[in-house]
Order: sequence, then C-alpha cells, then structure tokens
Amino acid sequence: MAVFTALSEARLAAWVQHYAIGKIIDFHGIASGIENSNFFLTTTTGEYVLTIFEKLTAHELPFYLELMRHLAAHHVPVPDPMRRADGALFGMLMNKPAAIVTRLAGSPRLAPQVAHCAEVGRMLARMHIAGKDIPMYQPNLRGLPWWQDNVPAVLPYVTDSQHRLLTSELAYHQSFFASLDYAGLPGGPCHCDLFRDNVLFTSCDGRDALGGFFDFYFAGCDKWLFDVAVTVNDWCVDLNTGRLNQAQTQALLCAYHAVRPFTSSETEHWRNMLRAGAFRFWLSRLYDFYLPRDAHLLKPHNPAHFEQVLRERISADMLPWL
Amino acid sequence: MAVFTALSEARLAAWVQHYAIGKIIDFHGIASGIENSNFFLTTTTGEYVLTIFEKLTAHELPFYLELMRHLAAHHVPVPDPMRRADGALFGMLMNKPAAIVTRLAGSPRLAPQVAHCAEVGRMLARMHIAGKDIPMYQPNLRGLPWWQDNVPAVLPYVTDSQHRLLTSELAYHQSFFASLDYAGLPGGPCHCDLFRDNVLFTSCDGRDALGGFFDFYFAGCDKWLFDVAVTVNDWCVDLNTGRLNQAQTQALLCAYHAVRPFTSSETEHWRNMLRAGAFRFWLSRLYDFYLPRDAHLLKPHNPAHFEQVLRERISADMLPWL
Repeated sequence: MAVFTALSEARLAAWVQHYAIGKIIDFHGIASGIENSNFFLTTTTGEYVLTIFEKLTAHELPFYLELMRHLAAHHVPVPDPMRRADGALFGMLMNKPAAIVTRLAGSPRLAPQVAHCAEVGRMLARMHIAGKDIPMYQPNLRGLPWWQDNVPAVLPYVTDSQHRLLTSELAYHQSFFASLDYAGLPGGPCHCDLFRDNVLFTSCDGRDALGGFFDFYFAGCDKWLFDVAVTVNDWCVDLNTGRLNQAQTQALLCAYHAVRPFTSSETEHWRNMLRAGAFRFWLSRLYDFYLPRDAHLLKPHNPAHFEQVLRERISADMLPWL
Repeated sequence: MAVFTALSEARLAAWVQHYAIGKIIDFHGIASGIENSNFFLTTTTGEYVLTIFEKLTAHELPFYLELMRHLAAHHVPVPDPMRRADGALFGMLMNKPAAIVTRLAGSPRLAPQVAHCAEVGRMLARMHIAGKDIPMYQPNLRGLPWWQDNVPAVLPYVTDSQHRLLTSELAYHQSFFASLDYAGLPGGPCHCDLFRDNVLFTSCDGRDALGGFFDFYFAGCDKWLFDVAVTVNDWCVDLNTGRLNQAQTQALLCAYHAVRPFTSSETEHWRNMLRAGAFRFWLSRLYDFYLPRDAHLLKPHNPAHFEQVLRERISADMLPWL
C-alpha cells in the first residue's frame, strides 16, 4: 500500500557500510505495510529487508528487534535483525530509525485453507512459549488505553449507529479488562497483528510449509488469548459475512492447543476476546480512515469489514454456549 | 404476587363514604402486581378496584389517574377513576394514597395467540393517539435517568458477564438517547408496562375481544416506539428462547400501523428500541431481585428472562437488515 520514504541507492550504499552484509546488488520498495517503508535488499551475502520506521520511535524499537532476535534464536521463523558494526540493531537513516533484517522465504496465502490455519495456530503457540522469557517489556500500544484515547477522536466522523457501537463496546471492554478473570489470563509477548499478509508459506513437493511470521512492529506484551483472537478473526473469517469458518477456526485452535492448551478461563473468555480483537481493528481502521497521516501511497483499509466482524462477534457472544 | 397493606372492612367502609358508589357487599385482596396493594370491591352500584399505593406519592398520582380518565373518556377501555365527593381522584387511606377505579371485564391471556397480539397492537395505537392531547406531563420514571442511577446499584451483585452487559448497554442507550434521531421520534403518554397480565380479554360466541388495559402506574410520557417495544417484547416473545415470534410480532405491528403508521425514523430505530425495552426490564428486575423492598408476599420476577431477551435483541440488532 505504501512506500513513504524515497531513498537513493547512493544514500543506502553509504548507510549499509555500517553492516557486514556485503555490497548492494539490488533494492526496491515494497508496496505493502501502512506503518513503515520497506525495501527488499539483495547484497553479495544474501536477501534482506530494510525497514525505515515512519512512526515508531527509537525508544520503542529495541523491544521489537530484540523480540525478533530472541524468537529467531529459539527457532521461530521470523526475520532476524542484523547487528551493525557498533553492535546496535538499528541506526538512523534520513533522520528516521531503520533496521535490516533477514528476508524470509515464501509468499502469503491470502485465501488460506484449513491446513494453513492449523500451521499458523501451531506456530503462534510456539511463538508465545518461546517469547515468555524475553527480558524486556513493552505493552501492546494498541491496547485499552489507546482505545480510550482514540474512541473520542473518531466519534465526530461516524454514524449514530457506529457511535452507539463504539461507545457501548468501549464500556464493555473496560468492564472486561477490569475483572479479576481478565487479570488472571496468561500472557507475554504477542505479535498482535498476525494477519494473512504477515505470514509466509513455501511450497515444496506440492505441500505448503510455514515460512515465517513477520512485521512485528505492532508486537507487545498482552494476553495470549488476545493474540489468538486477532489471528482467528483474520485467518478464519468469511470475508463476505464476517462470520468465522468453523473448520478453519477449529483447525487453528486445535493446533494451538496441541502446543499450549487454553486454561479454563481462556476458554470461558474466548468470545469476549474475539470481540476485543475485532474492536481493536475496527477502531484503528476508523482512525486511519478519518484521520490519515501524510503518505505517498497510503490507502487505508475500509473500516466496514471490521465493523461487520465486530457485529458478528457480539451477536455470537450473546448466544448461550453450545 | 403481593398484597402489601392489610385492610379491615370497617376501615374500608368508613373510607368509601367519600365516594358515591353505594355500600360494600364484598372485598378481597388481589394477589398480583408488585408495586401496589389491590382489592376487588363489590358495592351496591357495581364492581370496582381499590388500589393503595405503596410506593407512588401523592405528587405522582394525578398524572396516572387523569390519564386513565382521559383515555376512558376517549373510549379506550381502561379503568375509570371515581371522583370523591370533594372532587379529588384519590384520598389517603391508612396514611397512603388510594384510589377507586371501575373494574374491567375479562381475564388475561397469558399464552396469547396471533389474534390477541393484533388486538393489543390496534388498541395501543388508539391509546397513543387518544392520549396525545392530555394537558399534563410526567416522564416515564423508569427511563434513562433511572437506569443511570440504578445500574451502579446492581453492579455489586451481578456476575462479570452481566457487569459487562449492563455497562455496555447503558453506554449504548446513552448514545442512542443523545442522538438527533432519538429526539425526533414521536411520543406522548405511554403505558410503559403493557405486559400480558395487564390486558383483559372477554370471550363472546367463542371469540375473544379486548376488554381493556390496566395498571397504569408505570405510565409516563415517552417515545411511543418505546411503548410498542415493551409491549412486543412481552406479547410476542417465545418464553423458552427469548426470541420474537415472527407471526405475533408482525400481527401486533401491522395492527398498530393500521391506526398509526411508524415514521421512517421509527422503523429505522425499531431494533434499538427493542433493546431499550429489554434493558429497562432486565435492570428493574435485577433491582427488585437484589434490592427487594419490604412486602408481605413479594416474590420478585427472575431477572434471567429479560437478560435472555436483551441478549437476543442485541444479537438481532447486530445483523444487517433483511
């Protein structure tokens, strides 16, 4: 969707000398992502991705990069940040923080099958376990405090019906997040944005294998159940109706459970968390739609999809358990 | 359910002398209603109902009694309050306000058929129109301000799930009631409690005819659509599932429309108002359940029914229009 920062090869070549990754053979911008400028970078030593952070500050970056290094070291396939000669995981490029990470093999599966969902569930659970002992903490910066700050910002732009839904849903989650049950849910580092376009699959002998998770720049410590809910809301959704595909959902959850079973409290609050996950993305998409930032190529997602998803999750949450 | 105040015949006989309704032949308490003490009263001139108001104050009563007189005078079959020799519609009996009204013929239909729903819808619309020009105003005293005051009162008693539902639903209706659309909905005197047990039917030649509406002691000026929603939520509900029976709902609304068609805005906000109607009764039943008043025979309704109804209405409200 967006390449924000224009970058000359000369400037890049000079900057890359801080790294021991050889000489540039090719580089070009990637037209996806809405928060950063990304470039594929081919050098004499391999394939990399250069990210210039348009919004993230040098203060927030260490958590993301250390998390990726930690996960990569624990055999979770994620981009591995390269260290500079000075030992840092990022530097400043055109007055913005920038990092170089290894490039994962594979391509997204934007119309996933049941088997893809299972792979994602299994690896998500492995990622949660592997991330547990990282000695850094940063909250999910798109969590409840962000919702509380930004619901009022979008209210002037929305319809009456959306006003009611935003207001009541915020109150709902404030109540949920304040409960003892919520406090007791297990958590740790989460991806928080594990959508279809942030997972790569490679094809080998006609079988797809998970190539890796990437784009950790919304990652943060949160309830693991929230991460699962965000993931299911995207991977297992019927894009026409907003409903969950039962086979895909079951496959993702079963594969996740096989690695890390839900606690009984997580099972009890699964539907609440599906609402929370849908609300988080509806709100941020409303925000990006009505309050867009400057960008060369920014094309915000239509918020309507996540409004539909949220309404479906609320509707499902109103029904008695089977 | 309740006869609160014990009353001797001697005391009643003395008090009835304020009215020109003859001498008492018989009287006995009625074991229904949860807000007042009611007695059937047979005198030498006819059948009456004596009500001793346990909670309502002398300040609130004139609206109810004048409304009933006004409706009766406009041929809406409702109990007609008798005037005392001093011209008043009520007096004090055992230090409580009390009134005598005519007794309607018939009996309730607690398992209504489609035809009963249609009769109720038709008469409700006639009542709304007939009440329009009453020169008194009293708001529905169980409206939004009461909800705002009493949600916090019940929160300490409910489960986390109910806490979330109460909190989010209150926020929802605050948003709804603050909208221009809401302000523009037509209204006037409403019954506000037109449940199955507050309507009588007489049977004649095997056909049921509507005998009348009674128990106006929750009446108040409100949006007519709210009154219709409260009525539909009771008359047309499947008591097992909380869902609306489509045939009954359609019959009630069609009959109502034939007398007073909905405005387009009323049609648009019908589902919101069904939620508001369900919320109002869930909340008051929670209140009566957890914070009961002194009463000889008070047996509060189980709040669970209206929680189920509310969840069903929310669920339905989340779905796209057909």
